[in-house]
Amino acid sequence: MSEPYTPTARTRLVREPDRAVYDRAAAYQILDEGFICHVGFVVDGQPFVIPTGYGRASDNLYIHGSAASRMLRRIDQGVPVCVTVTLLDGLVLARSIFNHSMNYRSVVVLGTAVAVEDPKEKLEALRLLSEHILPGRWAESRQPNEREVKATLVMRLPITEFSAKVRQGPPIDDAEDYGFPTWAGVIPLKLVAGTPINDPRLDPSTPVPGYAGAYSRKQVG
Amino acid sequence: MSEPYTPTARTRLVREPDRAVYDRAAAYQILDEGFICHVGFVVDGQPFVIPTGYGRASDNLYIHGSAASRMLRRIDQGVPVCVTVTLLDGLVLARSIFNHSMNYRSVVVLGTAVAVEDPKEKLEALRLLSEHILPGRWAESRQPNEREVKATLVMRLPITEFSAKVRQGPPIDDAEDYGFPTWAGVIPLKLVAGTPINDPRLDPSTPVPGYAGAYSRKQVG
Repeated sequence: MSEPYTPTARTRLVREPDRAVYDRAAAYQILDEGFICHVGFVVDGQPFVIPTGYGRASDNLYIHGSAASRMLRRIDQGVPVCVTVTLLDGLVLARSIFNHSMNYRSVVVLGTAVAVEDPKEKLEALRLLSEHILPGRWAESRQPNEREVKATLVMRLPITEFSAKVRQGPPIDDAEDYGFPTWAGVIPLKLVAGTPINDPRLDPSTPVPGYAGAYSRKQVG
Repeated sequence: MSEPYTPTARTRLVREPDRAVYDRAAAYQILDEGFICHVGFVVDGQPFVIPTGYGRASDNLYIHGSAASRMLRRIDQGVPVCVTVTLLDGLVLARSIFNHSMNYRSVVVLGTAVAVEDPKEKLEALRLLSEHILPGRWAESRQPNEREVKATLVMRLPITEFSAKVRQGPPIDDAEDYGFPTWAGVIPLKLVAGTPINDPRLDPSTPVPGYAGAYSRKQVG
């Protein structure tokens, strides 16, 4: 089930409108697949773009960090932010340099974030952030205590104004280039997990949990 | 050989200063390993963060796109930008939720970009952008013609004000948590290339070039 969504002047794609995705469910699928987002905010006219983890619940994005974080303290002032998640799916090799491209899926969310003050919602948001990255890990970890929850700032960004952009499939060359004698196609890219590495201080008899050993759900964000 | 670099108030890391890297050579290694950057710019007080490819030559970053691109037309007005490249290296599973983290390497460059007007430098920048992503591909492709070069905007951003941040290694737990009975360690993440997919319109007798079939140099950016 996906709500209809009408882009604003700020989120409507002007170029390559065929790559635009204004479908909320499709955008959420991209958000749910990424690991990290890039958060944009402005200080004295200068934009900053900082990578960080995130989670989604319903029509809200959550980011978090130390209450001392320069980024979060800025965002906590109610300034406009932009949160972008990008999944890179492949290199697109056309015959002409000009038509080379990448296959990707990205979502851009504009808005203003609000600090989550309610301790219960805050803890739930932290659980979401954890489960987003590694489902199953939360329950097996030492839970946050009151001091840690207090030291953490969690910001909620409503997913109200957004756009998604998707490019998939083979290269599109100019008609006259299809005879050019070079290989053309797609090199697929995928983020994969390697063999888990034990913490050197771990009791080596501790088994590697299933969620760590068979991690293949995600692409990078 | 690496020049000493003194961060500005805007690029000095306030939190986790042990993760700061102010070494130019180390920052360039990160930039050279990534595929995509996230470009931040401001329109009417609203930050935008857009993913795009890039290349580096000496102390300059290059980004490019259609001369009709909203992002590039904005950047071409000489506004402050932020270009961030992030490489995700792993998930760090601590015993406590609070100490979970990610291993990553990121570079943030602040400044003002300038359009490359000289056709020779422009073509060389386009070559750099191509070689950055897939060395060897440029020479085997149909070269850009004058119309295509004109339709492309290339922006140069001097790497003058920047910071890099690196987190690597095992989790760091609080002393009292090391006895907590859960697995702890790192799940390494790596972007890998799959088997190249022929363009459906390619003559199937065309051999897959070596650079496409054995692509393993890069991590995602």
